[in-house]
Amino acid sequence: MLTPVRDLEQNMAARFGRVRAATCQLAEPLSTEDCCAQSMADASPVKWHLAHSTWFFETFVLERFEPNFAPFDPAFRVLFNSYYHGVGAQHPRPQRGLITRPDLASVLRYRAAVDERMQRLLARCEDAACLALIELGLQHEQQHQELVLMDIKHLLSCHPLWPMYRTVQWPQVVASPPAQPAWISHLGGLEQIGHAGEGFGFDNESPRHRVYLEPFALCSRLVTNGDYLGFMQDGGYEQPALWLAQGWDWREANTIHAPQYWRRAQGNDDALWREFTLHGAVDLALQQPVVHLSYFEADAYARWSGARLPTEAEWEAVAQAESIPFSGQFADSGVFHPAAEQGAPQLFGNVWQWTRSSYDAYPGFTPAGGAVGEYNGKFMVNQYVLRGGSCATPSDHIRASYRNFFPTTARWQFAGVRLARDL
Amino acid sequence: MLTPVRDLEQNMAARFGRVRAATCQLAEPLSTEDCCAQSMADASPVKWHLAHSTWFFETFVLERFEPNFAPFDPAFRVLFNSYYHGVGAQHPRPQRGLITRPDLASVLRYRAAVDERMQRLLARCEDAACLALIELGLQHEQQHQELVLMDIKHLLSCHPLWPMYRTVQWPQVVASPPAQPAWISHLGGLEQIGHAGEGFGFDNESPRHRVYLEPFALCSRLVTNGDYLGFMQDGGYEQPALWLAQGWDWREANTIHAPQYWRRAQGNDDALWREFTLHGAVDLALQQPVVHLSYFEADAYARWSGARLPTEAEWEAVAQAESIPFSGQFADSGVFHPAAEQGAPQLFGNVWQWTRSSYDAYPGFTPAGGAVGEYNGKFMVNQYVLRGGSCATPSDHIRASYRNFFPTTARWQFAGVRLARDL
Amino acid sequence: MLTPVRDLEQNMAARFGRVRAATCQLAEPLSTEDCCAQSMADASPVKWHLAHSTWFFETFVLERFEPNFAPFDPAFRVLFNSYYHGVGAQHPRPQRGLITRPDLASVLRYRAAVDERMQRLLARCEDAACLALIELGLQHEQQHQELVLMDIKHLLSCHPLWPMYRTVQWPQVVASPPAQPAWISHLGGLEQIGHAGEGFGFDNESPRHRVYLEPFALCSRLVTNGDYLGFMQDGGYEQPALWLAQGWDWREANTIHAPQYWRRAQGNDDALWREFTLHGAVDLALQQPVVHLSYFEADAYARWSGARLPTEAEWEAVAQAESIPFSGQFADSGVFHPAAEQGAPQLFGNVWQWTRSSYDAYPGFTPAGGAVGEYNGKFMVNQYVLRGGSCATPSDHIRASYRNFFPTTARWQFAGVRLARDL
Amino acid sequence: MLTPVRDLEQNMAARFGRVRAATCQLAEPLSTEDCCAQSMADASPVKWHLAHSTWFFETFVLERFEPNFAPFDPAFRVLFNSYYHGVGAQHPRPQRGLITRPDLASVLRYRAAVDERMQRLLARCEDAACLALIELGLQHEQQHQELVLMDIKHLLSCHPLWPMYRTVQWPQVVASPPAQPAWISHLGGLEQIGHAGEGFGFDNESPRHRVYLEPFALCSRLVTNGDYLGFMQDGGYEQPALWLAQGWDWREANTIHAPQYWRRAQGNDDALWREFTLHGAVDLALQQPVVHLSYFEADAYARWSGARLPTEAEWEAVAQAESIPFSGQFADSGVFHPAAEQGAPQLFGNVWQWTRSSYDAYPGFTPAGGAVGEYNGKFMVNQYVLRGGSCATPSDHIRASYRNFFPTTARWQFAGVRLARDL
Repeated sequence: MLTPVRDLEQNMAARFGRVRAATCQLAEPLSTEDCCAQSMADASPVKWHLAHSTWFFETFVLERFEPNFAPFDPAFRVLFNSYYHGVGAQHPRPQRGLITRPDLASVLRYRAAVDERMQRLLARCEDAACLALIELGLQHEQQHQELVLMDIKHLLSCHPLWPMYRTVQWPQVVASPPAQPAWISHLGGLEQIGHAGEGFGFDNESPRHRVYLEPFALCSRLVTNGDYLGFMQDGGYEQPALWLAQGWDWREANTIHAPQYWRRAQGNDDALWREFTLHGAVDLALQQPVVHLSYFEADAYARWSGARLPTEAEWEAVAQAESIPFSGQFADSGVFHPAAEQGAPQLFGNVWQWTRSSYDAYPGFTPAGGAVGEYNGKFMVNQYVLRGGSCATPSDHIRASYRNFFPTTARWQFAGVRLARDL
Repeated sequence: MLTPVRDLEQNMAARFGRVRAATCQLAEPLSTEDCCAQSMADASPVKWHLAHSTWFFETFVLERFEPNFAPFDPAFRVLFNSYYHGVGAQHPRPQRGLITRPDLASVLRYRAAVDERMQRLLARCEDAACLALIELGLQHEQQHQELVLMDIKHLLSCHPLWPMYRTVQWPQVVASPPAQPAWISHLGGLEQIGHAGEGFGFDNESPRHRVYLEPFALCSRLVTNGDYLGFMQDGGYEQPALWLAQGWDWREANTIHAPQYWRRAQGNDDALWREFTLHGAVDLALQQPVVHLSYFEADAYARWSGARLPTEAEWEAVAQAESIPFSGQFADSGVFHPAAEQGAPQLFGNVWQWTRSSYDAYPGFTPAGGAVGEYNGKFMVNQYVLRGGSCATPSDHIRASYRNFFPTTARWQFAGVRLARDL
Repeated sequence: MLTPVRDLEQNMAARFGRVRAATCQLAEPLSTEDCCAQSMADASPVKWHLAHSTWFFETFVLERFEPNFAPFDPAFRVLFNSYYHGVGAQHPRPQRGLITRPDLASVLRYRAAVDERMQRLLARCEDAACLALIELGLQHEQQHQELVLMDIKHLLSCHPLWPMYRTVQWPQVVASPPAQPAWISHLGGLEQIGHAGEGFGFDNESPRHRVYLEPFALCSRLVTNGDYLGFMQDGGYEQPALWLAQGWDWREANTIHAPQYWRRAQGNDDALWREFTLHGAVDLALQQPVVHLSYFEADAYARWSGARLPTEAEWEAVAQAESIPFSGQFADSGVFHPAAEQGAPQLFGNVWQWTRSSYDAYPGFTPAGGAVGEYNGKFMVNQYVLRGGSCATPSDHIRASYRNFFPTTARWQFAGVRLARDL
Repeated sequence: MLTPVRDLEQNMAARFGRVRAATCQLAEPLSTEDCCAQSMADASPVKWHLAHSTWFFETFVLERFEPNFAPFDPAFRVLFNSYYHGVGAQHPRPQRGLITRPDLASVLRYRAAVDERMQRLLARCEDAACLALIELGLQHEQQHQELVLMDIKHLLSCHPLWPMYRTVQWPQVVASPPAQPAWISHLGGLEQIGHAGEGFGFDNESPRHRVYLEPFALCSRLVTNGDYLGFMQDGGYEQPALWLAQGWDWREANTIHAPQYWRRAQGNDDALWREFTLHGAVDLALQQPVVHLSYFEADAYARWSGARLPTEAEWEAVAQAESIPFSGQFADSGVFHPAAEQGAPQLFGNVWQWTRSSYDAYPGFTPAGGAVGEYNGKFMVNQYVLRGGSCATPSDHIRASYRNFFPTTARWQFAGVRLARDL
C-alpha cells in the first residue's frame, strides 16, 4: 500500500485546531433543532457529539495535565460521558435527545473554552503520554465526525419530506464507466496483519501477528446498486436458503426488502427506486456502490452471487500491499455519498466493507490502562468487522489495519460489500 | 355555582388575539431545543402544539370560510394533524420530536400568518357555524396550553439536573393553615348533570340529563401531600388489598412507590422528599394538594382512607350548586403548581380530581358531524373522568360540566384526589 | 322475566355432587396433554381449573369448618391459588402450563378426596355461613366450567389441524328461519336493577338500586353471522370513522379483520368463510349469532349499523320483565356453539352480549369480607360488562342481574352483540 | 488424544437400534405431561424431540430410499419440521408446547413404525449415500438426547417445588480431592485443526486446515463451584470493568447474580447456595465444576482471574494430542451432572467449555447439498463455540474436533469454563 498522502504534521497544535474545526463545520448546515434530536437509541444528537468529543479532552487530558484544573461545568461530566464506567455515571443513551440544556450555543462555548485551554497546554507540553492522549482524542473526534454524518442522515430520513443536509455539485459527471470487476488473487500462506510502523493505531489493531491464509481472491471493485438490484429482482429477499437463520428472522420481523435508504419511486415497480442521500433524494445510480446494508444483507448477496465475504485478514493482506493505491471517496471531498469506482482497485473510501470476521481480540491484545481502556476491548463480542473507510471518513483517519465494527443488523453506517472467493 | 368571572366578550376578535397570544407566552421561557424535544409517546413537543393549534384554524376554519384559500404550506397538513382521520394521513405520534423542520421560527411565522388571516376573516364573519368553529378552536387551543405545561414539565423532569421552567415568587407565604376537612352532604335523588345554558360546552358534556343519586358526601378539601405521606408511611404501596388488581400489576411492573415527581431528598428516609415543579425542585409542602397521581394511586389512597372516589355525577351535582364559589389556583396566576386550600370549599382549580366514572357517552350523545366530530367521542373507552380543572387550566376554560379524561396509568397531568363517601 | 326453570334444591349435597361431576365430564373428551397445555396468559390449563376449583372448597370451606383440617397437599395451596393475595403467594399465571406435576390423575384424586370430605361436612352442616360459602364455591365452579370450554377452544384453535373437542349432532336442522329483528321498546324513567329475591347473587350484583333511563329500544334478536358479514363486506374493518381510537390502534397492531375463529375457506374470497367450533370446523352459518367478537368490534359494528350497544341497565330493565322467556342455548345442551334464534326474543344463552357499560361498583357496593372478597371488586376497572350468558354457561348459573366482564380486546369468551337505540 | 473407546460397529443396524432406544429411555422417568410442556422458546417438549428425530429419518432417508414411500402421517411433516425451509413450512417454534395432538402414545407408535421401516431398509441397504444419511440421523438423534436433558432440566426448574427427574446414587463419594490446577503449555506455531480420519464428523468441522498459534497454556482442570464462588464474593457481578459491554447490559436487564440453577439456601447469605440438578436439589459442592454459565459470565470470570478463555484452535490443538486421555463424565453414566475432576487433565465430558471463538466457517467450508445442508452453516453468526462435550453428551458422540455453539446469553446447556493464558 502506498503511504496515505498526509501532511505529516510536526505541529500537533495546528492539527488539533484543524480537526476540531472540522467537527463544527459539519454542524454548520444544521439548525439548532437538527442538532438536538435523536432518532433512535443507536444514534446521538449532533450537539451531544460536539459536547462528548470535548468532554474527552477535558476528562482525559486537561483533568490530568492542566495545573489547577477545574471543570467547565461539573454537570457535563455525567451528561456527556458515553460509556466510560471508570469515569462515573452516564446519562442513559436512549435519552440523549432529551438533554435540551445546555443549548447548542453553550456547547459551542464549551468547545471554544476547552480548545483554548488545550492550545495553552499544547504550547508547552512535551509529555509523551499527554501527546498520545491528545492524538487518541483527535482520532476519537474523527470517529465522531463520521457518526455525525451517519446520525444526521438517519434523523433526516425519518422526516416525511426527506430534507437535505447540504447542497453539493452532485452527482458528478461520470467520465467513464466503472471498472469491470476483476479478481485480485492471493496465494495464501503465512501473512502478518495488524498495526505496524510509527503512525497512530487503535489498541484493537495490535499486536501485529501472523495468520495462515488459504489461497483466495478479492474482487477489484465494490458491489454496485445495479448488481444489488439484480439480487432483488431475482427474489433475493424472499429465499430463505440465501440467508443466515438469524438474518432471515430479522428480515421477517422488520419486513426488510431493500437497503436502508431506498424507497420505491412509485407504486410497486421493482425497477424504479429513489435513494435518500445527505444531498437530497436521487434516482438510483446503478453504477454507484450499494450502501447501507446490514451484515445479513451483505452475506445473503454474497451467497446469491456465488462468492462470499472476505475475512478481515484476507482484506488486510491485500490492502497493505504496495500495489494498492490509497485513493477513493472520503469525507474530505464534502460529498458524503459513495462514487462509482473507475480504473484501479479502490479498497479505501466510498463504503465500509463488511467482512465475515467477528470482532475479536488479536492474540496478545491488551487494552490500554485506565478509563481510556474502555475504548475497544469491551465491545469485542457479537459484532463484525468492516474495513476500508467510507465517504464519511476523513482520509487521514483510515489505514489498512483499521478495524471498524457493528452488529449484524446495523445499517445506518455507510456499509457495502466487496466479494471474495476461494481459489 | 357562581358564574365564573369572565369578561363576556362581545368581540371574538379580541378574544382570539388574547388566547392565541397566551400560547406563545407559555413558550417564551423555553429555548428552541426545549420546544423541539418529545419525552414520551404521550407527550408532544411545544413546537408541535404551537403548530397543531394553528393547523386547527387553518384546516377547519380558513379552508372552509376563506375565499381563495391556499394552505400556508401543504406539508403542514400531514405534519401537524394529530388524529383526524377525516382530514388525511398523520405523522406517527411517537416521532413528533424528530420533526426538526420546520424550525421554531417558521412555526411562529405560520402562527402569525394564520392569525392575520383569521383576523381578516373575523372582521367580516357573521356566519354562526364559522363563529362556532372559531370558538371550538379557541377552546382547543386552551387545552393545548395545558398540554404545553404538562409536556414541558415531563421533559424537564427527564433531565438529570431538573432544570426550571420559570422563576416565580413561590411558594407563596401561607397566611393560615389549610381548611380542616369537612364533608359536603348531598341527599341524593334525581339530579341533572351536563352542559346547560348559553356558554360554550364540548359535545361530550351534552345532553344535560337526569341521573339518580344515592345520598353521599364530598370532602370539602383535596387530599394533601401530608395526607398522602401518611398513606405511604403506612405501607400503602405494599399492600395488594388496597389496590385494584390491574393497579397492583402496574405498580409492580413499574416499581411505583411515590407520586410521579417526588424524589427522596437523601438516602432512604421515607419522611424527606423533594418535589419537582415547573418553578424548580422544592421540599415537599405538606399542606399543598398532592398532584401527579394515577387513577390507581388515587383509588388505593381512597380505599386506605376508608372513603372512595366520587362519581362524576356526584361531583357535578355539588359543583354546580350556587353555594360553591368558583375560585382556586388557575393558570392565570402564572404559578403552575397547586396551592394549599384555605377556607371555603374549592372544587375548581389546583388539581384535576379523579372520579370513579369511566369516560362514557351521555344518554343521547351525538358527536359533531365531519372531521371535528373526531374530538371526544372516539376516546370514550378505558379512560376515567377528571373534574374541576387545575393550576395549569385557564380559568375561563373550566366549568362544572367540564369532563377531562385520562387512562388509569397516566400521571403527567396535574391530577389529585377529592374523597367521597356514602351517607 | 320468568323464573328460570330450576329444580330448587332442598338438598345441597346432591347439587354439590352434580355440579362437581359436570366439571369432570367436560374434561372427559380431552387427553392428559390437552389438559396440561396453556395457550396464552389469559387462559389456564384444564387441569388447573380442575384443581383450582377444588382448592377453593379446601381453602375457604374445609380449612374453616372441618375439624382437624389438614391439607391434601400443602404445595397445592400455592400452585392452585389464582389471585387471592389474602391466602398467600401464587404461581405466576402465564406459567400455569409448566406445572406438569401433580399430573392429571393426582388432580382427579385431589378432587375425589375433597369431594368426599365435603360430603361428610355437608351431611352434618347447618351453619348458614358455611352453606353460603359452599354455594359460592359451586357458582365459582360453574364459572370455571365455562372457562374450561373457552380455554380449550383457544388451545385447539392454535393447533394447525384444528382438532375437534367432541362430536355432536350438529348443526341441528333449522326448522324455520330466524326471527326478523324487531325492537323492544322501553319508555325509560326510574327503574331498579341489581340482584333481588332469595336466590344466589354475586356481590357485584348488589345492592339493587334505582337508575334513571331515557327511552330506548333493544333489538329482539342477536346480530347474526350474515349481518356481520355485511359489515365486513362494506369495509367495516377498514374505516377508522367506525372505530373507537383505541380499537382502531388495536386492530392495526394485531391485523384483525374477522372474528376470532373465522378463517377464509380459500384464497381471498370475502364471501367464503369457515368457522372453528368445539365440534369441528364448519362453513359459516349465516343465520347463527356471530360470536367471539371484542368490545371494539361489537362497538364498531353497532356504529356501522346506525345503532349502539345497550347499557347494562337498559339490558337488565328489559331482561327482568316477566314477558321475557328464560330460554336459549345453554351448556346443558352439550352443544357449545350458539344456535339461530327463532320466534320469541331470547335474551339469555347463545352469546354473552357486550354492553357499553364499564364494569363499576353499584352505589353502596361492599365486597365480602376476608379473602373471598377478592372476587369481583378488585377487577372493577378498564373492563366492560356482558350480559345474558352463553352456550357455554350452565342454565342454572345465569339470571337477569348477572354481570360478566372482560377487557375490550378479549375475544376468546363466547361474546356477541345485541343492538340498542335511543327512542 | 487417545482414540475414544468405542465399539467400532460393523453393524449399523445394531447401532441404529441402540441409539434410538436410548432416546426413549431418557423419556421413561417422565410423565405424559412432562413430555408435552415447553418452558421457553429456546426449548422444545420432549415429545417433540421424540417426534422430530423420527421425522428426520422419515424425511431424509425413507422418503428417498424406501420403495413406495408413504408418510406415517402427512401432518407430521409440518408439525415436526424444526427449521428446514427446504422441506416446507414449520410450526412456530415458541408454540411447540401447544401441540397436544398427536399424544405421546401416538408419537411412540410413530417412532416404532419408522424404526421398523428403517430396519427393513438397513437390512438391504448398501448405498453409501443412504448409510451416510443414517449416520447423520443418528448423530442428530444424539444431539437431541442432550437437548432432552437440557430442556427437561429447564422445565423442572420452573416448577416451584424443583421436582426431580430421576434418583441416582449421587453425589458419589469423592475418593480424593480434585486435581490442583496446572497449566498445559503449547509452544504455538502452525497447527492443524478440523476433522481428520475416517469417523463421522459434521460439515462444520471440515475442512481440516492450518492455523497459526502464538504460545499459550490451557488450565488442566475446569473452574469449580468454589472458584466461582470466589468471583461472586469478590463482587464479580457488580464490577462493570470485568464485563463485556453487552454482557453488563444483559446482566443488568435480567438481574443476573449467580449461575442459572443456583438459589440461595436461605436469606441473603452469600456463602450458602443450593443447586438444582436433574437428580434433585443439593448443597453446592465446591469441588465440582461450575455449570450453566453464559458466555458473558465465563468471560467475566476469566478476566477476573487474570486469564482468558481459550480460542477453539488452542483448545483443539491440545485436545487432539495423544497425551490427553478421553475420559470424563458422560451421559453414559446416567448421572447428568458434572463430577469433580481428579488426576489427569480431562478435556472431555463434564461441561462444555466456552471458547472465545465466534462460530464461523472454516476456510473452504461447504455445507452439504439439499435440505440437510441447513444443518450448521446457517447458524454461523453471533454464536460462540463450546468444546469437549458434557455430562449430558453420549461419549461416542464427541471428539476433539467437535464444535458446539450457542448465543452468548444461553445458559441452559451444560456449559462451564476452562481457562487459558498467553505464554
